Amino acid sequence: MDHHERREAFARALWRVVEQRGVAHLTLREVAQEAGISHGALQHYFTSREAMLSFAVDPAWEQKSLRVRRGFQELGDKPHPRDVLRVMLTEMLPLHTDARAASRISAACVLEALHNENIHARARDDIAQGRVVFEQLICQAMADGHISPTRDPVAETNLLLALTGFTALIELDVVEPQDALTAIDQYLDRLFTRNDHSTRREEERSR
Amino acid sequence: MDHHERREAFARALWRVVEQRGVAHLTLREVAQEAGISHGALQHYFTSREAMLSFAVDPAWEQKSLRVRRGFQELGDKPHPRDVLRVMLTEMLPLHTDARAASRISAACVLEALHNENIHARARDDIAQGRVVFEQLICQAMADGHISPTRDPVAETNLLLALTGFTALIELDVVEPQDALTAIDQYLDRLFTRNDHSTRREEERSR
Repeated sequence: MDHHERREAFARALWRVVEQRGVAHLTLREVAQEAGISHGALQHYFTSREAMLSFAVDPAWEQKSLRVRRGFQELGDKPHPRDVLRVMLTEMLPLHTDARAASRISAACVLEALHNENIHARARDDIAQGRVVFEQLICQAMADGHISPTRDPVAETNLLLALTGFTALIELDVVEPQDALTAIDQYLDRLFTRNDHSTRREEERSR
Repeated sequence: MDHHERREAFARALWRVVEQRGVAHLTLREVAQEAGISHGALQHYFTSREAMLSFAVDPAWEQKSLRVRRGFQELGDKPHPRDVLRVMLTEMLPLHTDARAASRISAACVLEALHNENIHARARDDIAQGRVVFEQLICQAMADGHISPTRDPVAETNLLLALTGFTALIELDVVEPQDALTAIDQYLDRLFTRNDHSTRREEERSR
């Protein structure tokens, strides 16, 4: 294995530690143990816990992008924007093993970010990038008449991103994955309700 | 100070550690140092990191309940259910210092819960309890005609809880607190749209 492959192997060991033992165990020592090498040898690849965590986020994001792209392919040539948003939203949730590991690494990063400027900047950029894609999709769907022009694209984008709050609810078994999907579908159904505009007007008149 | 008061003082030291240094530093050793006592002396009060974290969640929840109750008082005698939900939702977000500390302790618990049955059961119960209150409010608002009877109370409850996803977006500076509030207000405005039922019907006919 070359340097790059070894780092990848260590990142996988790190993922296993987070997935099986939890973020509290995410130390160079425990990752070295999981990877079957000495603490000193691991430090040759990662100088700190932060460097290791930063590096581990890449595969998490790559796997997610891959799943999203696969989901898009299944939608065919001219997908409805509602279906595109649904793929993006559901792949953000811990609905299967891969997504769960990625979502836990992300959660670990968010907590770490609160006290670490580098990780904060990194996590912020990653999520802000995703946010731009969501907003473009919503603006395009509004321009194409799929979403009412009375909707506020910024607020709608923020609400969609906020629905990642289902992650903790699913992880804690407060909401079943199927119920999260049902709720998201109802949410998207309403977002894509075309008569929203006229209704709002009617309502204002009736008050 | 008696035993109880001392434990409270240690819980506050723990909060300071989480707020200022982050969850990675949440160890008996660092909390003892913050509280100005020896590691051994702290173990007299908390036998493990888990016991300490469990204990620290109580004041977080109590402070939140207190802020929610204060918010309710400001709404007066016969508050509109929309305003009641708004108080509950916004107090779940890290919009001021107290709420931020509580929200970080909660996030730490959620991550810890993934690998610790006791904390999982505890966090699950706390959130499930809150979920029941949200669902009762929504059902009552539907019965009173404030929310359309076409809405699904389970999905609506789950969506409202999922909006706690704003927490990470605010903490990472991806969404400004004011923008989160704007989005939540628009969300609640639509939830409380009374003509929702007839619109849906009209739409179905027009398809």
